[in-house]
Amino acid sequence: MAESPVDLLIRGTLVDVNTGRLREAAVAVEDDEIVALEERPADRVIETAYVAPGLIDAHMHVESSMVTLPRYGAAVVPRGVTSVIHDPHEIANVLGADGVRSLLADAVHTPLKARITAPSSVPASHLQDGGASVDADDVAALLDEERVVALGEVMNVPGVLAGDAEVHAKIQAARNRGLTVDGHAPRVTGSDLQTVARFLDNDHESISLEEARQKVEAGMRVYLREGSSSKNLADLVGLVDEVDSRRLSLCTDDRDVVDLIEEGGVDAVLRQAVELGVDPVEAVQLATINTAESYGLPFGRVKPGAPADLVCLSDLESWAVEHVVVDGVVDPTDGADEPPTSAIETDTVTFEPVDASDLAIEHEGDGSVTVRVVDAVGGLQTARMEASVPVGRPDGASGVLAADTEGDVLPMAVIERHGGDGGVGRGFVHGLGLDRGAVGSTVAHDAHNCIVAGVDHASMASVANHLREIGGGVAALDPEADATTSLSLPVAGLMSNDPLAAVKADFEAVESTARAIGLTHDGGLMELSFLALEVIPEYRLTNNGLVDVEAFDYVDVVTR
Amino acid sequence: MAESPVDLLIRGTLVDVNTGRLREAAVAVEDDEIVALEERPADRVIETAYVAPGLIDAHMHVESSMVTLPRYGAAVVPRGVTSVIHDPHEIANVLGADGVRSLLADAVHTPLKARITAPSSVPASHLQDGGASVDADDVAALLDEERVVALGEVMNVPGVLAGDAEVHAKIQAARNRGLTVDGHAPRVTGSDLQTVARFLDNDHESISLEEARQKVEAGMRVYLREGSSSKNLADLVGLVDEVDSRRLSLCTDDRDVVDLIEEGGVDAVLRQAVELGVDPVEAVQLATINTAESYGLPFGRVKPGAPADLVCLSDLESWAVEHVVVDGVVDPTDGADEPPTSAIETDTVTFEPVDASDLAIEHEGDGSVTVRVVDAVGGLQTARMEASVPVGRPDGASGVLAADTEGDVLPMAVIERHGGDGGVGRGFVHGLGLDRGAVGSTVAHDAHNCIVAGVDHASMASVANHLREIGGGVAALDPEADATTSLSLPVAGLMSNDPLAAVKADFEAVESTARAIGLTHDGGLMELSFLALEVIPEYRLTNNGLVDVEAFDYVDVVTR
Repeated sequence: MAESPVDLLIRGTLVDVNTGRLREAAVAVEDDEIVALEERPADRVIETAYVAPGLIDAHMHVESSMVTLPRYGAAVVPRGVTSVIHDPHEIANVLGADGVRSLLADAVHTPLKARITAPSSVPASHLQDGGASVDADDVAALLDEERVVALGEVMNVPGVLAGDAEVHAKIQAARNRGLTVDGHAPRVTGSDLQTVARFLDNDHESISLEEARQKVEAGMRVYLREGSSSKNLADLVGLVDEVDSRRLSLCTDDRDVVDLIEEGGVDAVLRQAVELGVDPVEAVQLATINTAESYGLPFGRVKPGAPADLVCLSDLESWAVEHVVVDGVVDPTDGADEPPTSAIETDTVTFEPVDASDLAIEHEGDGSVTVRVVDAVGGLQTARMEASVPVGRPDGASGVLAADTEGDVLPMAVIERHGGDGGVGRGFVHGLGLDRGAVGSTVAHDAHNCIVAGVDHASMASVANHLREIGGGVAALDPEADATTSLSLPVAGLMSNDPLAAVKADFEAVESTARAIGLTHDGGLMELSFLALEVIPEYRLTNNGLVDVEAFDYVDVVTR
Repeated sequence: MAESPVDLLIRGTLVDVNTGRLREAAVAVEDDEIVALEERPADRVIETAYVAPGLIDAHMHVESSMVTLPRYGAAVVPRGVTSVIHDPHEIANVLGADGVRSLLADAVHTPLKARITAPSSVPASHLQDGGASVDADDVAALLDEERVVALGEVMNVPGVLAGDAEVHAKIQAARNRGLTVDGHAPRVTGSDLQTVARFLDNDHESISLEEARQKVEAGMRVYLREGSSSKNLADLVGLVDEVDSRRLSLCTDDRDVVDLIEEGGVDAVLRQAVELGVDPVEAVQLATINTAESYGLPFGRVKPGAPADLVCLSDLESWAVEHVVVDGVVDPTDGADEPPTSAIETDTVTFEPVDASDLAIEHEGDGSVTVRVVDAVGGLQTARMEASVPVGRPDGASGVLAADTEGDVLPMAVIERHGGDGGVGRGFVHGLGLDRGAVGSTVAHDAHNCIVAGVDHASMASVANHLREIGGGVAALDPEADATTSLSLPVAGLMSNDPLAAVKADFEAVESTARAIGLTHDGGLMELSFLALEVIPEYRLTNNGLVDVEAFDYVDVVTR
């Protein structure tokens, strides 16, 4: 058998995730497969310090990087990330199951092995009009698609607990196919956690060691998350020594384009885990075989018969990558062609042009009025707030509730942008800090309507109309410069077809304009994208109006 | 959720195979499922020292115990063995895929969760006529049956290495279904092992630590075997500390009825592993979650959502069982009804009655003749031997090659018993030690023809005809007592419908008669069952004649 030369032989210290040990080895590759762990005559030989399996990100949303999946692949494959478990929750909120199918079409245009989950929780609620819903039948059909490996993170924990038929039909559809059910159970403990663990296989939302410990003791796989928004690894890493780490994985969940370029994907989490004291071989297990076992994937280990997904490293602890092999191809992203334009729909921002009056709350009389305000306190949270705002007459005619720039209470609007007639929700926000102009985004979790906030309604309307014209994106208007700076995100109104560097540059330009017009929020411009998320407390603005999340109902902006 | 009482609550120290730790817990069971690991009001409460998941035997053949699957279940379930991975290789050699389907029908009549593998290697070779063959189409159809979890141990290693189409079609059929491929690769090393590891997922044939280490480093799961025939645990147990033990499991492979009654099933292997120094929790992992993961089984762990397969123990290290729960039923074999008669065919011993001359090798002239002899050296091996035997004239007419009882060289015959016209193979055996009478068996790996050996051909014919009359079994004839003692094995000619105790008593009676007529072989009467196994060196007798296994061809008994 060993006579004819194999395509590739890699010599180095093998990071053997099967045995949990390092050893000297030669990895023989023929076509797309590892055929032997021994010396063989080979057409090409690579000598390296360490050879490891390609990393797998156990849970991520490519939309968070505002680039397409092939662009994301081009960013992370050279870093040794050869697979991701990608939940296209945001695409599905805009485009439903068809959007997920378009994503599956995109997935063939990158060496990154994107394995997809069928979004379980679209829409997030009935309180906002999104672009689509994904029902149990849609989920079942998606679960039959190639590359789909799980039901996406089940966010409707109350539905799981209450035996909601639709949620449980989705879970059962995955079970019937022998597929995994991803969980999303932040701060769920006690009896509720026990019930969640009956139905959901894993969770990536723990923020404390105690929370993570309870989940792993309840039998869930626990993913240790370190993303751009939520950074939990340092708090959770102690679990690796406490329990049999086979039940733990690493994930990013989200990764903004700046972090992606500067730090990488799940390779950055691995590197940090090692810095935090995790044994390097065990850390590689956390990002390879453990995740492969969570989803029944054939890769994530170096053995005869496995796909040849390999990383050559000059140093293991710092994960210093020399070469990456995917399906036997060495450095597949080097000199690769530009990916084709995404198959995902780009005509998704379809509201009628708005003017200032469409975004304003009319008010009879003069003086000031007490309003309920979405207080953008940061993180994913908002707080309830009340404030007094003046009545203005910008066009000299009818009165409208205007900004109190002194108090940083600004008008905000959410415009349904999916071609329905869902209309415009109007309200107020505190904490952005703008002192002129307006900012806006068509990335606005989870319904992804067009959200705008500003000092005056005319600027807000201008930003909204600009976002409409460019097919979606993020924008800031500086009236002093008479200029709108924007990042175009035409792919579902969430992502760009452009390379990472261009997206980063455009994003930084918008952020710069936003800072110039006074944006002071720590979360930057993307804070806006969370202010319409009507499932996380306390106040949120939807296209149907202000929502008190704990009451889970609409509430008037003007207090009585 | 915790308001209405659950059916059962078990309090004790949980052997948590997910976390690899012991901790105090309460296991709440509702119907057939573990619903929580916390205190709940319950209709029945069991207080115990330890609660563990039910054990899984990673590889076994129920035929080795000569009892039906429900009888085997009745023996091992009370010992905390709640599942077995059963390869019905012997049944398939007699009855083909239909026999396996009958076994699947039997499997519903025991709480033991028998998961079945589709036999891959039937017949063992073309050199002997068995009862059936199982081709790639048969395998594919079996793999679609409920309870079938893998392709059974692939013994045709040369076929795997040479790319034999039929073997690889069977392997591919399992891969296409996401099922496991069980291996059987004794003493395979080097490049051959690398190729075997490409295609076969596990192996249970290692006899040395070095062999097992090579296999686990080649990426195979390694099962540590401790059976009645092959006892390898002590030699292999060091591997548990050497490598990440998640890739290791415990199995019995075979278990004769005496060992089964006196020591148990895989519980005995677990107990021995602990005695050999394996951490008890890790030992339980070796016999539960690791094996569950090898076959994608939902049980083998204690967590909400898992089937309620639990063992209550007064002591962990000695595996002292107080209660066993299967699918929520406490002690399901206590007071259980007799299982129905096996669905497996009982009319499988169908040769025409034989007489002495049918079993003898005729010879012209007198004196003595040099013959090739199957030397029953023990283990599974035989050795090549030559010896001189006298020509006798038992009926006063034609001459036949007779026994040399002084030299312990006895006539032996293998009678095709599957209703074909495969005829009778005639030869000689050394090492049994008989000084009168004859012994015989319809258990004769792998073709399971009727094998008889004795001091004279008339006794041999009498034993064969007796086995024919009782539909198969094991028998010994003592001419001095003018009595044939037998164990009836009418189920495929391999197993009894009777309870273990009766089978054991009958077996011991036959063994006693065999000893009385001079049987001295360490392997006892069952040594006979290996003397027709034409795939293990060196000489074997088949119904078609003597086989030199290394030449893999027939060879004349009489030397020229």
